[in-house]
Amino acid sequence: MSRSFAAGTTTKLALIVRGDLKMGKGKTAAQCAHAAVMCYQNAAQGSEAQNAILKRWCRMGQPKIVLRVDSYEQLNGLQLQAEQANLIAALVRDAGRTQLDAGTATVLGLGPANAIELDKLVAHLKLL
Amino acid sequence: MSRSFAAGTTTKLALIVRGDLKMGKGKTAAQCAHAAVMCYQNAAQGSEAQNAILKRWCRMGQPKIVLRVDSYEQLNGLQLQAEQANLIAALVRDAGRTQLDAGTATVLGLGPANAIELDKLVAHLKLL
Repeated sequence: MSRSFAAGTTTKLALIVRGDLKMGKGKTAAQCAHAAVMCYQNAAQGSEAQNAILKRWCRMGQPKIVLRVDSYEQLNGLQLQAEQANLIAALVRDAGRTQLDAGTATVLGLGPANAIELDKLVAHLKLL
Repeated sequence: MSRSFAAGTTTKLALIVRGDLKMGKGKTAAQCAHAAVMCYQNAAQGSEAQNAILKRWCRMGQPKIVLRVDSYEQLNGLQLQAEQANLIAALVRDAGRTQLDAGTATVLGLGPANAIELDKLVAHLKLL
């Protein structure tokens, strides 16, 4: 029996933070939480394959990893690559009420996705 | 016309972090993201009233606030108070793979909830 999404496949969610914005710990946490919820919603409302990955990710305890980039260009490049690879990509833009200008892109959520597919895009990034 | 949940009611989600654990920025963000997703899931699978608050919260742009306590006892006390007030309360326990012992309570998510109800429990806490 052949399946495109094997039973033992590991899944994860990557939260990619712009380190160049120098957000504080609370601000960073809020923006990452926002990205994670957006990714969850996108997956829940997405294709059957995305639903299946979401369920697997939840059963695995929702593994997530927080990474950093150093510019908007890097974040934007990853978003485009993810979209081309048909991965869920949710970009958080700050409402601008506190530390940042309104509309500043802060965090990109990628996944939940097959960890191998995701690593093709993010394995070179450093942990935040 | 009287409604228990008025049209203009503000909603929010509080993410309450144990400051005494001295988690790094990435770790804190991952734990807060976990709490936010758990709260979202609880609300989506909860009562009609909780569904209604969740929808309102999403329409409002998912406002969230990140606060701190200085001990497990404080976190646990807030969880009990929230449960007594019939608010969604989701406690994250770390899997123990990196900085903390397995099972350590790290973050408590409260809500999404009516902001006035939530503030009765958390208005005295400091921002993280």
